[in-house]
Amino acid sequence: MTTTAIRPATTSPVELQTHPDRYRHWELSLDGAVATLRMRVQPDGGAREGYELKLNSYDLGVDVELADATQRLVFEHPEVRCVVITGGLDRVFCAGANITMLATSSHAFKVNFCKFTNETRLYLEDASENSGKRFLAALNGTASGGGYELALACDRILLVDDKSSAVSFPELPLLGVLPGTGGLTRIADKRKIRRDLTDVFSTVAEGIKGKRAVRWNLVDRLAPLSRWDEVVAEEAQALAGEAKPSGSGEPKGVELAPVEVQVDENAWHYPDLTLTLDEDARTAALTIRLPHDAGPSSGEEAHAAGSSWWFFRLFRALDHALLNLRLNFPGIGLCTIRVVGDPAIAFAADELLASSDHWFVNEVRHFAKRVLKRLENSAKSFYAVGDEGTAFAGTFLELALACDRFYLLNDPEVPVKIGVSAANGGLYPMANGLTRLETRFLGTPDATAAVLEHKGATIDAETADELGLATFAPDEIDWEDELRLAIEERASFSPDALTGMESNLRFAGPETLETKIFGRLSAWQNWIFQRPNAVGERGALKCYGTPERPEFDYNRT
Amino acid sequence: MTTTAIRPATTSPVELQTHPDRYRHWELSLDGAVATLRMRVQPDGGAREGYELKLNSYDLGVDVELADATQRLVFEHPEVRCVVITGGLDRVFCAGANITMLATSSHAFKVNFCKFTNETRLYLEDASENSGKRFLAALNGTASGGGYELALACDRILLVDDKSSAVSFPELPLLGVLPGTGGLTRIADKRKIRRDLTDVFSTVAEGIKGKRAVRWNLVDRLAPLSRWDEVVAEEAQALAGEAKPSGSGEPKGVELAPVEVQVDENAWHYPDLTLTLDEDARTAALTIRLPHDAGPSSGEEAHAAGSSWWFFRLFRALDHALLNLRLNFPGIGLCTIRVVGDPAIAFAADELLASSDHWFVNEVRHFAKRVLKRLENSAKSFYAVGDEGTAFAGTFLELALACDRFYLLNDPEVPVKIGVSAANGGLYPMANGLTRLETRFLGTPDATAAVLEHKGATIDAETADELGLATFAPDEIDWEDELRLAIEERASFSPDALTGMESNLRFAGPETLETKIFGRLSAWQNWIFQRPNAVGERGALKCYGTPERPEFDYNRT
Repeated sequence: MTTTAIRPATTSPVELQTHPDRYRHWELSLDGAVATLRMRVQPDGGAREGYELKLNSYDLGVDVELADATQRLVFEHPEVRCVVITGGLDRVFCAGANITMLATSSHAFKVNFCKFTNETRLYLEDASENSGKRFLAALNGTASGGGYELALACDRILLVDDKSSAVSFPELPLLGVLPGTGGLTRIADKRKIRRDLTDVFSTVAEGIKGKRAVRWNLVDRLAPLSRWDEVVAEEAQALAGEAKPSGSGEPKGVELAPVEVQVDENAWHYPDLTLTLDEDARTAALTIRLPHDAGPSSGEEAHAAGSSWWFFRLFRALDHALLNLRLNFPGIGLCTIRVVGDPAIAFAADELLASSDHWFVNEVRHFAKRVLKRLENSAKSFYAVGDEGTAFAGTFLELALACDRFYLLNDPEVPVKIGVSAANGGLYPMANGLTRLETRFLGTPDATAAVLEHKGATIDAETADELGLATFAPDEIDWEDELRLAIEERASFSPDALTGMESNLRFAGPETLETKIFGRLSAWQNWIFQRPNAVGERGALKCYGTPERPEFDYNRT
Repeated sequence: MTTTAIRPATTSPVELQTHPDRYRHWELSLDGAVATLRMRVQPDGGAREGYELKLNSYDLGVDVELADATQRLVFEHPEVRCVVITGGLDRVFCAGANITMLATSSHAFKVNFCKFTNETRLYLEDASENSGKRFLAALNGTASGGGYELALACDRILLVDDKSSAVSFPELPLLGVLPGTGGLTRIADKRKIRRDLTDVFSTVAEGIKGKRAVRWNLVDRLAPLSRWDEVVAEEAQALAGEAKPSGSGEPKGVELAPVEVQVDENAWHYPDLTLTLDEDARTAALTIRLPHDAGPSSGEEAHAAGSSWWFFRLFRALDHALLNLRLNFPGIGLCTIRVVGDPAIAFAADELLASSDHWFVNEVRHFAKRVLKRLENSAKSFYAVGDEGTAFAGTFLELALACDRFYLLNDPEVPVKIGVSAANGGLYPMANGLTRLETRFLGTPDATAAVLEHKGATIDAETADELGLATFAPDEIDWEDELRLAIEERASFSPDALTGMESNLRFAGPETLETKIFGRLSAWQNWIFQRPNAVGERGALKCYGTPERPEFDYNRT
């Protein structure tokens, strides 16, 4: 297996796959219903040269391990009910994102780094909500910035009471940036801390400790060093006792085989999909192939197939492809998506996903949910393309609905059918909490109902167009030109304006913690990441850790 | 009266006061229940040199007139039930914000300009919801960009069907920026247009016209040129028929006298407040003085007092002061706010505001609501300071709650009292739809109830602190040092990080169209307004209208 990307834009392509045996920064230990993830970042283990990961500060490589561990806990260790996240250094839990790494990264990398770390923290919360796991942040020392933001993503926060350990957001006072990994959103909207106290907390570089941290609801409990291990164990057991298994079936872990990918000059080949890149045109074409055999028809069969169940294998490959696109191919602006095969295969998988209460099937469904969100959260334009042989059905119709546009060939001479299944009725809620059909038809709920009446059936392009599923449905005569022009046009627009537009249009309707993090907090952070006061020669981010003091242009904007 | 600001940051200070007699760009005509606002922008009437306001494109000066007209329609013309907003040029309704003006403005000015124009459009919607007025956008020609965004703020959109007039968002394809005056938010969340169609619409520079514009819900109705005046009149009458008076009382207009202000070397003096500037310290101190006489005790008396009712006069001055701070004093980072006087005076006004159903009292209350929102939407930090003689009571306690922090002197030797009234129970909803107490105590609704139990009474600093109203409540010994340090510290932080932090922390809880516009859309637009692809030498905004073609860095971020 290789994941070396062709002509990557960064000096070294970002490696997205790992395994506990190869972790450099985290230690995963298991003890019945309780697992412990201990952070002990190797100072010289940065993903690239030029910075030292001191005091458990992290870079993308550290977070890739955390994401991997979370995923393995979910799939390989279903018996785990509580995950303790703690630090392996003395007096320090985690100092947050590494500042030198941030200060020496491109704007685009900073933005992508924050996006990925945000997704990982939301993954912890998703596992808490849907996978029968509780997360305990056992802060054995000071948790600063991203360190405290990681704690905020946990269900409960325990802080050592040693007179010196604190929780803090030093981003604003020391670095001139925001706690942008959900920090400002979670203290306000998750822990519901009073707004004036959040203001104070976010400007006190040294943080808040002891009883005040509890009183302000920044942490849930203090424990003295002398009773630390005991209290951590007690809290972990209590949390484990609250958590319920996420489904029926034998709680036997499913080993995650590596995602297979072969890379040649201009394409990545996965068993179930191919991503072809045209860097001159700034486009990519993703083709997903459904298998000929529907595979497992029960939770037990799916469980037995494990990570070789085609549906799971396909979404793991899709996740990998999307992350690779984001991190290693910034020059690609538009990705077209095709799904080919027999819609009946998609329907069969959807039937299992919608009806089984097996924990593994449940986890695969939530995995696919997160991949669809990853797509919607990628700064690329996506066009779904439905032409002859298309299999945009059920879960894969969801994929089309996740795209910015859906081009569907509508010609009496060419049979093109898409399909609606239970998957479109609620299997994969979006970040805004709605289904993709509900979001699409925000003002006309009847239109959602009309689509769902076709559940379990394929519908022809004409009907799909009438139902409002296609953005454009040209006939054979116009098809090629129209699609080609739409692709060329998209690839010609300002990439920044497209990112801004897509960030506004993709999430209409209600707002959630998640949409606030990506829509509001990230947008402000990105703005600040462009400002000379942060990233200029005398900006705070640049000066931190050097003898220089930042110089600000104090004009408020 | 003079509004010449001391040492303004722009070459010419922004003039915020005007009168229909002096309008250069709008013509306000009245005909019973229907008013018409006709836009006929003077090409050479720009607020500064260097651009020509062609094709009804606008700058801040044009929008100041629109805001003034809206305000006068509300107060001076209560009999008006429908306002027709239309254009006075041939074939063009409005081309949106003037591009050359934007391209030659500083980043900070662009941001402030968009904020003000957004507030004005929200004012139209507020007047529709609360002031018994309906707005009809009668698009007599093409409405592009900000022109169409203005239409989106109206209740109904009529488009001339002349084969050429269209509605359009050319920002992305032509300028590399966003329709940032609520455009992307309102097409998705107000008109609830399908997300793929919003995507298409936002990339088609020439826009959408005729039947397709109706089908997509971009406009409500078409009317041919031959029947234009007739259909506009018919629609206006229908809308006027829907609107209900916003309260009881004689529907006799209240003339708005100019806001009085005297400017000396380092202060603006208004009858009821003084704003003192310390530009070296980058701070301002706002002191509000309550009168000795409570004034009107009935709706009729308030109506008779009109714009000389102290409460209204005070809030009009506050609005003026806030806008002046924003637009003319970017170097000021922090403003402290004190209210001095007798809390009984505030209670008396609140009693009238809470109990009267007189239309004028209602309008004054909504006016104060908007001023409080203006404060929360300003890129300045605000500290409320309650020391001896303070009168943070009711409406003025709201002001303290609108601030980022509330410092309250709590010393047994010094009598410091604040007061709670019905005003704190719901008279002034925030942009998120909640009261300030509800937002403050998002996670502990009981705390809100506990505060409201004190309605109608003053409470001492100790009790206020216990109730969670004070951020810090030091005693006399610590008071001065603590406050001084807090002010100095605030003024030393990165101004950009403060803006980002405040934009995230001030609006916890639910999201609305309004919070989405300022939190999400504006943040992305501000980001884009910093990007070389928009504002660099070969950026789209810079090149527009020149022979140069923009050159993009096509990397997606």
